[in-house]
Amino acid sequence: MTIQSAIHALSFLGDRLTLSKSDLDAHGASETHFAAAPPDAVAYPRNTGEVSQIVKTCAEHDCPVIPYGAGTSLEGNTSAVRGGVTIDMAQMKRVLAVNAEDMDVVIQPGLTREELNTELRATGLFFPVDPGANASLGGMASTRASGTTAVRYGTMRDNVLALEVVLADGRIIRTGARARKSSAGYDLTALFVGAEGTLGVITELTLKLQGQPEATSSAVCAFAAIGDAVNAVIATIQMGIPMARIEFIDAETTRACNAYSKADMPEVPHLMVEFHGSDAGVAEQATRFGEIIKDMGGTGFKWSSKAEERAALWDMRHKAYYACLALRQGATAIVTDVCVPISRLAEAVQTSRDDIAASGLQGPILGHVGDGNYHAILLVEPGNKPEMEIAKGLSNRMVERALAMGGTATGEHGIGLGKLDYMHAEHGEAWGVMSEIKQALDPKNLLNPAKVVQIN
Amino acid sequence: MTIQSAIHALSFLGDRLTLSKSDLDAHGASETHFAAAPPDAVAYPRNTGEVSQIVKTCAEHDCPVIPYGAGTSLEGNTSAVRGGVTIDMAQMKRVLAVNAEDMDVVIQPGLTREELNTELRATGLFFPVDPGANASLGGMASTRASGTTAVRYGTMRDNVLALEVVLADGRIIRTGARARKSSAGYDLTALFVGAEGTLGVITELTLKLQGQPEATSSAVCAFAAIGDAVNAVIATIQMGIPMARIEFIDAETTRACNAYSKADMPEVPHLMVEFHGSDAGVAEQATRFGEIIKDMGGTGFKWSSKAEERAALWDMRHKAYYACLALRQGATAIVTDVCVPISRLAEAVQTSRDDIAASGLQGPILGHVGDGNYHAILLVEPGNKPEMEIAKGLSNRMVERALAMGGTATGEHGIGLGKLDYMHAEHGEAWGVMSEIKQALDPKNLLNPAKVVQIN
Repeated sequence: MTIQSAIHALSFLGDRLTLSKSDLDAHGASETHFAAAPPDAVAYPRNTGEVSQIVKTCAEHDCPVIPYGAGTSLEGNTSAVRGGVTIDMAQMKRVLAVNAEDMDVVIQPGLTREELNTELRATGLFFPVDPGANASLGGMASTRASGTTAVRYGTMRDNVLALEVVLADGRIIRTGARARKSSAGYDLTALFVGAEGTLGVITELTLKLQGQPEATSSAVCAFAAIGDAVNAVIATIQMGIPMARIEFIDAETTRACNAYSKADMPEVPHLMVEFHGSDAGVAEQATRFGEIIKDMGGTGFKWSSKAEERAALWDMRHKAYYACLALRQGATAIVTDVCVPISRLAEAVQTSRDDIAASGLQGPILGHVGDGNYHAILLVEPGNKPEMEIAKGLSNRMVERALAMGGTATGEHGIGLGKLDYMHAEHGEAWGVMSEIKQALDPKNLLNPAKVVQIN
Repeated sequence: MTIQSAIHALSFLGDRLTLSKSDLDAHGASETHFAAAPPDAVAYPRNTGEVSQIVKTCAEHDCPVIPYGAGTSLEGNTSAVRGGVTIDMAQMKRVLAVNAEDMDVVIQPGLTREELNTELRATGLFFPVDPGANASLGGMASTRASGTTAVRYGTMRDNVLALEVVLADGRIIRTGARARKSSAGYDLTALFVGAEGTLGVITELTLKLQGQPEATSSAVCAFAAIGDAVNAVIATIQMGIPMARIEFIDAETTRACNAYSKADMPEVPHLMVEFHGSDAGVAEQATRFGEIIKDMGGTGFKWSSKAEERAALWDMRHKAYYACLALRQGATAIVTDVCVPISRLAEAVQTSRDDIAASGLQGPILGHVGDGNYHAILLVEPGNKPEMEIAKGLSNRMVERALAMGGTATGEHGIGLGKLDYMHAEHGEAWGVMSEIKQALDPKNLLNPAKVVQIN
């Protein structure tokens, strides 16, 4: 019983099982700094039945299975560190049902968020979760992704109503319901969302949708200091202004965006905001926000309902990761992802900023500050061990400070390989409970092994 | 190793362990029709350490443990059907921290929602989840409660940030964080919320708070038919009007409320709504809602921002269960709790109404229609077996229809004893996964046994 015998037994997939080196390499690569860890084969199932067969076959041969969406995760979440078969959902991208009246949609996991929103355009509905990357929705569920709109619409935790999941032994289950709420037993949907494929393979998702807002407006404004920008965010939340997005970029990120997206913002910290609502509601929100940032010393505030200005703004924000990478030629990145209670956010960001400045590395900071979540993009030369050590030290200290503040090591990227070392510090005994659940549901430790929990 | 030896070993609690018949009977009673099932003893711990000691001691003696809050659950959720020790949280009611800037609060589980909101009054914040009864917050988390405000603020699932839990062997763990979001591993918080004390005993909760709205207005309006009222709700949701509450009562419930709360509504279906927001926002919401219900044939719509009118309205709504019980002297009730996708709600409610009418029983219907959740209060004479059979038949058919529509057997009351029979129909194989998790975390099946899952 070996990986090779599993691959042999998967021959029923025909040319939808590939062993080509380029395909294996592509599936073992990382968006960030993780070493390549290719699988031994990549399977492209077309439906749930095939996924079940693949998982069952691999279980019979003790072969690891790694679910794979668009490959945009940042923590090595899909690295095949123990080899095995990667299940690529590229051929499971169908929209199975749009229930417009119920404002939900049933989809296959390989569909990306942009593809879904293109499909929905004519319905007046949209799926709001936006992690920046055009990730697959199965992958977004698996890492409990969020991004720029979580402050208003929540994370994947809040937007997945129901799942179909293939368990470690090939059984197919359904969790949740299309009803908006339920008290019918353990919340298995929430258990599989964020499990990074370690408890089961998601083969179908029922997602909540939102009505496209009648009006949308957006704005950028500049601040002299990080603390002023963050305090403006805190005040906005406490006033109950329902921003759809409120994003922070520091002076270094602003410089990167100016260069990459040909913008000309002053090189100081900025907030980028968006409001959704009725025409009158959006105007009221923008006016009240304008008053708050004036009190906090914000400058250059100007809101606009023009679709093209808005598109340019969020295009620039979505490309910020690549803009930051471009600050240093050939660099790779360690991307941090802490999230803290918002009362501690200004202190957390400023301390991170100072720590990075003292390190000699470049490390622009940006974040979904309405949630207390921010990232530093720590730029290192690939293979430069001393730099990697410095970056890891910065990242460690950022996490330690976040945990001491009641926060988390990862707001939205998941554990993957990159955050495993912090799990005990964050969860203590509760990490052991996660292992107990993993062992109950995947006793052979074959589903995306070596991620989230440490079994052996 | 018996229940009696466990009780002996709990003598360290002194007079905070009681065997008095009246106390045992009070803890074995049900708000609805379930037979009395008293525990063998009731413990009143003062802190987490004591809860841990009690659970550990009971585990050593193979003695069941039943966590108990305010005793307001409706499905026999706290019945001690296998005897054992009930842990009453009446002496664990402290507010441990109010983090106003972060809009969260840390509390002990015995605190009730009304007590919490009284404590919060001066802060400008409130806890929004409102199941009607003045339930304990530990109990509300355990049953994944919701109620009138879920349409705007979500259920307990959405409002618990973090927990402290005593596991079956007495270990104490912490789940979640005070950060607003996290991707750090399995969502244990969501697993314990709704587990009805079968996976662990909740000893501390961190809850999200909301800012008290600048303005609040409320309204009642009448409809000729159930379908018109429900269609008005669907249109309101699709227009994106952010109602804080939208409640339905049918003609029979209206009659009950008139009699019980000395009101004089026409005896037809009604909607009761509430809007939260800025002064301008609330006025805009009410105006738009008024236009919708006019289109749907709603009459008598009048909105008011007067606090005393609003208080009277929600007092009447909160007493609706007792008002319905009072329709028939000496009656007890089977309370149904289905939740369906909102597109099917009018059909579901009307079919239930017709089925009840044909049965000869009285069964007023009311519900949190913004979520697709409604209840029939089926009135039966205690001990009258033929009536009980008729009521159970009505309830069964209501659940079967709800499941066929993609709904759930219980929107907010939990499984307890009353909904166990529907778990397999609702979840299929996934119910088995719940059992696997239960066995992993409570291998001796001592935590609130015979609820949620069936082990032996």
